[in-house]
Amino acid sequence: MLLFRCDYAEGAHPEILRRLAETNFEQMEGYGSDAYSESARQKILNACGCPGGEVFLLSGGTQTNATVISALLEEYQGVVAVDTGHINVHESGAVEYTGHKVFALPQHDGKMDATELEAFLTSFDEDPNKDHMVWPGLVYISLPTEFGTIYSRSELTELQSVAHRHGLLLFIDGARLGYALACDAADFGLEDMKDLCDAFYIGGTKVGALCGEAVVFPKGGPRHFFTIVKQHGALLAKGRLLGVQFDTLFTDNLYLIIARNAIDRAGELVSVLKEKDIPFFLESPTNQQFVILENDYMNRLAEKVGFDIWQPHDATHTVVRFATSWASTSGQIEALSQLL
Amino acid sequence: MLLFRCDYAEGAHPEILRRLAETNFEQMEGYGSDAYSESARQKILNACGCPGGEVFLLSGGTQTNATVISALLEEYQGVVAVDTGHINVHESGAVEYTGHKVFALPQHDGKMDATELEAFLTSFDEDPNKDHMVWPGLVYISLPTEFGTIYSRSELTELQSVAHRHGLLLFIDGARLGYALACDAADFGLEDMKDLCDAFYIGGTKVGALCGEAVVFPKGGPRHFFTIVKQHGALLAKGRLLGVQFDTLFTDNLYLIIARNAIDRAGELVSVLKEKDIPFFLESPTNQQFVILENDYMNRLAEKVGFDIWQPHDATHTVVRFATSWASTSGQIEALSQLL
Amino acid sequence: MLLFRCDYAEGAHPEILRRLAETNFEQMEGYGSDAYSESARQKILNACGCPGGEVFLLSGGTQTNATVISALLEEYQGVVAVDTGHINVHESGAVEYTGHKVFALPQHDGKMDATELEAFLTSFDEDPNKDHMVWPGLVYISLPTEFGTIYSRSELTELQSVAHRHGLLLFIDGARLGYALACDAADFGLEDMKDLCDAFYIGGTKVGALCGEAVVFPKGGPRHFFTIVKQHGALLAKGRLLGVQFDTLFTDNLYLIIARNAIDRAGELVSVLKEKDIPFFLESPTNQQFVILENDYMNRLAEKVGFDIWQPHDATHTVVRFATSWASTSGQIEALSQLL
Amino acid sequence: MLLFRCDYAEGAHPEILRRLAETNFEQMEGYGSDAYSESARQKILNACGCPGGEVFLLSGGTQTNATVISALLEEYQGVVAVDTGHINVHESGAVEYTGHKVFALPQHDGKMDATELEAFLTSFDEDPNKDHMVWPGLVYISLPTEFGTIYSRSELTELQSVAHRHGLLLFIDGARLGYALACDAADFGLEDMKDLCDAFYIGGTKVGALCGEAVVFPKGGPRHFFTIVKQHGALLAKGRLLGVQFDTLFTDNLYLIIARNAIDRAGELVSVLKEKDIPFFLESPTNQQFVILENDYMNRLAEKVGFDIWQPHDATHTVVRFATSWASTSGQIEALSQLL
Repeated sequence: MLLFRCDYAEGAHPEILRRLAETNFEQMEGYGSDAYSESARQKILNACGCPGGEVFLLSGGTQTNATVISALLEEYQGVVAVDTGHINVHESGAVEYTGHKVFALPQHDGKMDATELEAFLTSFDEDPNKDHMVWPGLVYISLPTEFGTIYSRSELTELQSVAHRHGLLLFIDGARLGYALACDAADFGLEDMKDLCDAFYIGGTKVGALCGEAVVFPKGGPRHFFTIVKQHGALLAKGRLLGVQFDTLFTDNLYLIIARNAIDRAGELVSVLKEKDIPFFLESPTNQQFVILENDYMNRLAEKVGFDIWQPHDATHTVVRFATSWASTSGQIEALSQLL
Repeated sequence: MLLFRCDYAEGAHPEILRRLAETNFEQMEGYGSDAYSESARQKILNACGCPGGEVFLLSGGTQTNATVISALLEEYQGVVAVDTGHINVHESGAVEYTGHKVFALPQHDGKMDATELEAFLTSFDEDPNKDHMVWPGLVYISLPTEFGTIYSRSELTELQSVAHRHGLLLFIDGARLGYALACDAADFGLEDMKDLCDAFYIGGTKVGALCGEAVVFPKGGPRHFFTIVKQHGALLAKGRLLGVQFDTLFTDNLYLIIARNAIDRAGELVSVLKEKDIPFFLESPTNQQFVILENDYMNRLAEKVGFDIWQPHDATHTVVRFATSWASTSGQIEALSQLL
Repeated sequence: MLLFRCDYAEGAHPEILRRLAETNFEQMEGYGSDAYSESARQKILNACGCPGGEVFLLSGGTQTNATVISALLEEYQGVVAVDTGHINVHESGAVEYTGHKVFALPQHDGKMDATELEAFLTSFDEDPNKDHMVWPGLVYISLPTEFGTIYSRSELTELQSVAHRHGLLLFIDGARLGYALACDAADFGLEDMKDLCDAFYIGGTKVGALCGEAVVFPKGGPRHFFTIVKQHGALLAKGRLLGVQFDTLFTDNLYLIIARNAIDRAGELVSVLKEKDIPFFLESPTNQQFVILENDYMNRLAEKVGFDIWQPHDATHTVVRFATSWASTSGQIEALSQLL
Repeated sequence: MLLFRCDYAEGAHPEILRRLAETNFEQMEGYGSDAYSESARQKILNACGCPGGEVFLLSGGTQTNATVISALLEEYQGVVAVDTGHINVHESGAVEYTGHKVFALPQHDGKMDATELEAFLTSFDEDPNKDHMVWPGLVYISLPTEFGTIYSRSELTELQSVAHRHGLLLFIDGARLGYALACDAADFGLEDMKDLCDAFYIGGTKVGALCGEAVVFPKGGPRHFFTIVKQHGALLAKGRLLGVQFDTLFTDNLYLIIARNAIDRAGELVSVLKEKDIPFFLESPTNQQFVILENDYMNRLAEKVGFDIWQPHDATHTVVRFATSWASTSGQIEALSQLL
């Protein structure tokens, strides 16, 4: 069946598989001290324009969020997200499991509003009872958001500025960062990320890798973060698996090139959906597209094509997600067009 | 440089890479609900002789230990291990991070002694202050142990019997289980594991996979263990990565065949070491061999061959580990022989 | 200065101090195994009409909430509260510190709405992604609420019924339970609590004791709850301190008699406030009264009388709380009347 | 029955009860911001000779240990104790519950040996795998120890010096600190503690208070420690209960005077035990005395007098503890003498 359910329906970009095979019998040190991991880290730092920073390669998004967030927070602090933020909804409470509260602000097309963040933090600062409360210590946003939308450079700058003014850091979940960077609406590039936030990660799992997220601390990571990664069960013995993959993705700009494929296919997808007069739930410039389907129609369609049921819309309609990926083809979009 | 440092110095068995490539563009559901993961789980249950059990595929050993142990323990309980047990020493406190104490019993060539376990648990049961203590809830052993030794069937039976008599479960860390099963000294097989313990895992990372550990609950897992895995950041979006690997390893007995290679090469290694009159620290029937090297000799050797520095032996000697793996060749052993 | 800031501004009821002095040199066992703690537990079970239940005496509310909630939840579960619930706001994340998420539903005069709870739980049950989410495991409400309001018997029955239907338990934070039971609006008594919820506590700290909360599990507590209490640092060596206090409070109905004093004084307080045409923020039948003060007036008043600043109302007004207690006197209300 | 089981068998020093009664109806702010808590903190800082330090009043020992230790440790660190240390054995894993490992060194009459600490920390520092281990971050000792023994000034200096040299802090559990300070063998005073460790507490529960431990950070506490105390459920609403007690104990030297009573009575106890030729398990200069009783004799004696069964000694003998307290009388010792 044709799947548009997510951007992790296929395996890895063939070049990754090729290099995994090519390097397979080279004997390497474990735990990320191999040459490919080192090369990947350097290429990432170069691409990010922060050669003095630090990069750590982890396996998956939930793992990365919980590990980084707990490392950046003090015991008495919590993290601020929007209510639809992945850490607040779909990570089985991995952040709370590390002992920290997730504060949920309202989302607007999946995004956090800097004015609302400012109001929340000011209200906390002025609260006479704040010593009895959890202290906000970090702002978490995802880019693109869970609704496929992206922030503008000025929105990111404003969020970080609000965060810093109140003594918080800004952390960006970039599980799909490539799809934000590659889309036409983005007015920032990978080399700007170091200035727009205090820590972020470059998602591999959803952008062409078998697994892997590259965490970037532009000014260096928390003390003994390697040990913290191990403590969270997030350190692969065969670090080469991540090293080779990211080294490949950051060679000859592959990461952004394949991310761009998803954007181009999403453009075709949007055209097809509009052609069929299917109403959009919101406008997204990236690879995730949210539309509203009548329930009977949806059920019939679901027999022939895979999409993700997102949320009820009204008594007779549902919001669903179609996602393209680095691996999507125009042929798949055309095939979908026949089925709609 | 020739590496005998560990059994994760190479990538994956070529057949795994071949099948990853072969299945690469098949679109699959995420999070382990793909057909390959399902097939892998079934094959594993069949190989284990417990079709009614449950299998979960995780990425690495530390992650698996912390996730399973925390799921099997009640809030007020701790886990009993030997002092050299991996969870007690080399997992950065991942188990304690989940809130549980690790009790450390003395090790004997890396093994737990059932009589000492019995004495420990009896002492706890009879302690008038036990309500002020952590309750032992689970026994953790590794098989092979961190010293490459293995338990006999009767030792395992006795450990489990002691554990059960005191209301505890027995959990086996099988990060290197293949090397135990494949060695000549083993008087049990994979199909016996279901009777010898209450939960165990079949290590892939150290036996031919890029990553992956298959947890087996012979009588079914803890309630909502899937969610617990997610909460621990241990759920891969592309579950296929684990599914294809374990499906391959459990096709045509590949897992045991390649494990046997490590044992055969270890036999050659032992011959070479004995030939050179290098004293053994202890006797191991599996792929890890521990010998005692004079420090100057060790330092010179370290320039030409990789081995693992284990622990100081006396003022002038050190215990080091040589490990073979599924990928080791007789040629490598011969090359080592020239260097010793 | 005259304080109406809270219901813990004074020490203990004199009869408690008298009995502490009277029993002071009796030698007793520690940790709650003394005769007074035993007597207190029996009297409480009798008063609650559940002689087969279990009672545990802890020191304070936040401690009790975190200890009970973590004991009642499985690792993969969270607790549902209203957004103004004490555990969600004013306990410094003590519940999250134990690893569990607090779900926040909207409050209505501080109360949870059973229909909204039903909708929330149904939505969870029907969510195709629920295995990736925190499972709701417990409903937490406070009685009276943080706004001094109380639930009716039918509201409690409905909440519990919804909770049970979805497999959750209902836990009542009764830090001020006496003030709910003693007020005219209550259509239930202490003996009904066993049927209206699955666990609750009878607050001592705010109803005449120096410290102490009596947790009641009508059908018996979680396994080894004593050890869990100790693990949370919530077990007093001199358990007698709690035993003597609760034994006193549950002798000759003292607990409800002194709670009633707060209600009577609150009645006088309401009359005075209405006389002065001070607008109420909401209607409360218990000892906490919330009114709206113009900010300049509030600041002048604050120089002469203590009250609690609750939340901003609009640009020029603030919601403040006046609380009476077991120790309040009509003289104090009259004195306040002169100052308003 | 005559109890020598512990030093918390009685209530509080009468002067404490008198002042609780005297101040009972004064209205005070909650959570330790009352005048008595403030006065207590100042008197303690003065007595400790560190007016620039910070004092926090908590309720009990286990609570204090878990709260302070978790606040002083980074996420990746653990605490070093001796194997008989209270946190390692009799606190139901409260420290591990906060996510941190307890390292156990051998005890010598309950004490930690600085040379062994040095060896342990050096071994860690030199371990090539230390990034995969828990980092020792804090040394915990109790003074007096769980065996009633005390450290000399030079032993404390050496322990702290070793700790600091390796980047660790030294924390002293002073649940019975008064009994150390008051004994003849002590070559240091309360005013020396600020130099001998980095944090310590002055136990009230076992030295004349109903409850309460005063944590002293000679150079100031961890950031937002108040919030951390609340997060651990360790903040009493009626902070006055602790404030009045410690203010009383630190007025006119009461704390040390009543501690001295326990020492004097222990001296009489030792004389009686020696007179009866009862063998000592070890020599203790403080209020806890450990002797070896033949089991039949012990069982008969247990019918008439309360003592604490500590540990089996051999097949026919048991080590038991007799403890005197601030409240013990010469009459009680004489009564015991008749029963032995």
